[in-house]
Amino acid sequence: MRTFKEPARETWNALCQRPELELDYLDSSVKNIMTRVRKSGDYALKEFAWQFDKVRLNALEVTSTEIEVAVKATPANLAQAIQTAHTNILKFHRAQEVPLLSIETMPGVICQRKSVPIEKIGIYIPGGSAPLFSTVLMLGVPAKLAGCQEIILCTPPTENGTINPVILFAANLVGITKIYKVGGAQAIAAMAYGTESIASVYKVFGPGNQYVTKAKQLIAMEGIAIDMPAGPSEVLVFADETANPDFIAADLLSQAEHGADSQVVLVSTSEAIFPKVAMEIDRQLDFLPRKDIAQESLKNSLFTSFEDIDTAFEFINTYAPEHLIINAKKAHSLTDKVRNAGSVFVGAFTPEAAGDYASGTNHTLPTNGFAKAYSGVSLSSFQKHITIQEISNEGLQRLGPAVEIMAEAENLLGHKNAITVRLQTLKK
Amino acid sequence: MRTFKEPARETWNALCQRPELELDYLDSSVKNIMTRVRKSGDYALKEFAWQFDKVRLNALEVTSTEIEVAVKATPANLAQAIQTAHTNILKFHRAQEVPLLSIETMPGVICQRKSVPIEKIGIYIPGGSAPLFSTVLMLGVPAKLAGCQEIILCTPPTENGTINPVILFAANLVGITKIYKVGGAQAIAAMAYGTESIASVYKVFGPGNQYVTKAKQLIAMEGIAIDMPAGPSEVLVFADETANPDFIAADLLSQAEHGADSQVVLVSTSEAIFPKVAMEIDRQLDFLPRKDIAQESLKNSLFTSFEDIDTAFEFINTYAPEHLIINAKKAHSLTDKVRNAGSVFVGAFTPEAAGDYASGTNHTLPTNGFAKAYSGVSLSSFQKHITIQEISNEGLQRLGPAVEIMAEAENLLGHKNAITVRLQTLKK
Repeated sequence: MRTFKEPARETWNALCQRPELELDYLDSSVKNIMTRVRKSGDYALKEFAWQFDKVRLNALEVTSTEIEVAVKATPANLAQAIQTAHTNILKFHRAQEVPLLSIETMPGVICQRKSVPIEKIGIYIPGGSAPLFSTVLMLGVPAKLAGCQEIILCTPPTENGTINPVILFAANLVGITKIYKVGGAQAIAAMAYGTESIASVYKVFGPGNQYVTKAKQLIAMEGIAIDMPAGPSEVLVFADETANPDFIAADLLSQAEHGADSQVVLVSTSEAIFPKVAMEIDRQLDFLPRKDIAQESLKNSLFTSFEDIDTAFEFINTYAPEHLIINAKKAHSLTDKVRNAGSVFVGAFTPEAAGDYASGTNHTLPTNGFAKAYSGVSLSSFQKHITIQEISNEGLQRLGPAVEIMAEAENLLGHKNAITVRLQTLKK
Repeated sequence: MRTFKEPARETWNALCQRPELELDYLDSSVKNIMTRVRKSGDYALKEFAWQFDKVRLNALEVTSTEIEVAVKATPANLAQAIQTAHTNILKFHRAQEVPLLSIETMPGVICQRKSVPIEKIGIYIPGGSAPLFSTVLMLGVPAKLAGCQEIILCTPPTENGTINPVILFAANLVGITKIYKVGGAQAIAAMAYGTESIASVYKVFGPGNQYVTKAKQLIAMEGIAIDMPAGPSEVLVFADETANPDFIAADLLSQAEHGADSQVVLVSTSEAIFPKVAMEIDRQLDFLPRKDIAQESLKNSLFTSFEDIDTAFEFINTYAPEHLIINAKKAHSLTDKVRNAGSVFVGAFTPEAAGDYASGTNHTLPTNGFAKAYSGVSLSSFQKHITIQEISNEGLQRLGPAVEIMAEAENLLGHKNAITVRLQTLKK
C-alpha cells in the first residue's frame, strides 16, 4: 500500500485519480456484436451463446419449470437470509415514494409533479464466479415497487445451459418472470433493440464487465437510459484512534476481494493505526479464497493521515468514494461533513457488507468520483417525474401578460400569440 | 402537414420517429476544440471568440459594472414579468424539497437518505437571435435552491463583446455572479476541464446547437454529468371536438417557430377539426416574424385522428412528447392516461407558452421520445441523494447472520468476514 502523511492539497487530485477505464479499443468489437443482434435477433444471441458461453441453446427464456426447480434447490437458510434482505430493501425503497405534488403558484395556476413508472426496464446480472443474486434484489425490488410493467432480466448461462439457481430464486421472490439466458454486450443490445424473444426496454440497469460497460455507453449515446456510468468498486474508511484495526482491515479486504482494480483507501487522524491495520490485513488475508485478487488490489491502496479532521473530510470529499465507512467516535455527527459519497456506513458496527446485502439501502452506487454529481440507484431511478399545469381563465388573465412580454423579448411571437388569442377570447 | 386517419399500430413507431440527430461528423472538429481548451485554457477561449464570435476579448468574465448597467437597461415591464416568472418557478421548485428520510428497517438498523447539493454546476445559455433569459431562470433558480456552491454561466458574446442585458438581468436576479463570455463547444469544454478563469464543474446544464450537444455527449462519456440528451423541441396537442381551432393553431405555431426541425403533432378524436386548424394556421402564420422557420417545420407536422380516446392516448404514449397539451373536455381526468411525456398542459387556457416562461414548472424537458425514461429538470437535478446507514451492536447481531450466509453464497468471504470479526467481538 502507498502511505501519505498530511499530503499537500495540490497533490490531492492525483492521489484521488482512479485508473482510467480504457474502453475505446473495445469500440469496434462491441459495435459488431450489437449490430449482429440488431440484425439477426435471437439467432445472433444463440450464436454468441455458443461462442462466448460454450453452450447450444434451444430457447433463450428460462421456463417456469426451471424456476420452480431452482426455488426448491435453494437451501432454506439462504432462502431465509434473502427474505430478510428483501424485506429491508422493500421497506427502505417504499419509504422513498413521493406523493403527488400540487402547488398553486399564483391564483388559478396549478402546477403538479407526479411520479410515473418507466414502463419497460432491463436488468443485467453478470455470471461468472460470483452469482450476484443480491443485485437481483437491489434492482428488482425498486422496479417492482415503482410499477414498471415490463421487467426483463438477462444473465449468461453456464456451459450446461443453466442459470445459477439462487439468481432464479431471488428473481422469483421479487416477481420477475421474464428471464433470459443471454450475457455480455449481446444482452445489452437485445434489451436496447429487442429481438423475437426479448422486448426492447427504455432503461437498462446492472453491472458487468468491460464489454457490458462499453455496450451500455453506446446505447446511452443512442438515447436509451442507463443506471449510471461504471467503474471499479471502491471503499474509503475513515478511522480515528478509537477504531478497531480488525474491523478496518476486514472492511478494506472486503472491497479488495472484488477485483484487482478495486480501490481501497484508509484515511485517518491517527497515523499510529496504520501499522496495526497492515498487520491485521496480512493476518486476515490468509483466510480468503480470493487472496490473490485482494493482494493485487491492495498494492494500489492508499493510507493517508491528516491531523485535522476537517482537512481529512475535505480530502474524502475530493475522493468522492462509492462507499464511505466512518469508524470513529461521534461518527454520526461526522456525516454532516460528507458532501460527496455514494453510501455512508456509520460507526464501528456498520460494515459495508451490511449495505451490500441487507441493511435496506441500494448497493448500486456511483464509483470513480461520480458521487460528485450522481446518486445511487433508488426508487426514482425507475420512475419519471412528469409535471402538469392547469390554468384557469382567471389564472391566464393574471399570468398571461407577463408571458407575452417575455416571449416578445425572446423574439418568439408565436409564443406570445398563443397567450394573446386566448386573452382576446376572454375579453369578448 | 401529413394527415393520418386511424393509423394501424404497426405504423406507429415509424410515425413517431424523429429525424435522426446526426452528430458523428462533428466528432473530430468538436474534439479538436475541446483538446485546445484543455491544453491552452483561456488563450484558446479567446482565440475561439475571435474565430466564431468575431470579437477580441481582453477578459472572459463579465464585470459587476456590466451587470449593473444591464440591470438598469432592462425595461421595467420586462423586469416585472421576469420577477413574476421567478416567483412562480421558485415556489414550484421549493415545494420539491424532500426532508431527510430515516427508517429503521429492522431494530437497530437505521437507513437514511439525504439530499445534498452538487457542489459545482455549469449553465450554458445559447446566444443568437433569441436571448434565452428564461432558461437562466429555469436552471439558475433550482441550482440556487439546491445550494450549489459554485454556479457558472457561459454564454457567447456579441461582436462588440457584450452579453444580452436581459440574460445578465435574469442571472443577477437569480444570484449568479460568475458569468463568462464563452460560447459553443469551447464553453462546454471550459466548464468540464476548467481554465485559468473558469472553474471546472461536476455537471453541465443547458441547451445549445449541434456543437454544444456533441460536446455535452463527449463530456458525459468522460463521467461529467449532463442534464439530459438533446433533440429538437416538440409539442403534441390532443384536441377533441370542443377545442377552439384558434388555440390549437396558435399552440402548434408556437412550437413550429422554434426551428425548422421542431416537431409539431396534432392528435384528435375529431377529424373534423383538421381543416379548421389548418386554415387558422395559415391565417396566423402571416403575423409571425419567424414565418419561414415555422412553415419549414410544419411540412413535417403530423395530424392524426383516432375514434377511440384510449387508442389516441396509446399513440401519444408511444410518441412520448416533450410537451403535451390536452385541450378537451374533462381534460384533467385524461392526465391519468399519460404515461410518457415531459410536461402536460391541461385545458383550453393552458398553452405551452405559459410553462415555457412562467407557470412555475421547468421548461428543460426530454425531447425525442426520451420522456419514456427521462424526466425534465427539477430541484433534484441539482442534488445528489446520499444514503446513510447506522447499525447498533444489537442490530448487527440481528442482521449479521443473514449477510454472512449471502456473502458466502456469492463466494465473497471477505464480505462475510467483515461481519464475523464484529460478531465475534460482541460474543466475548
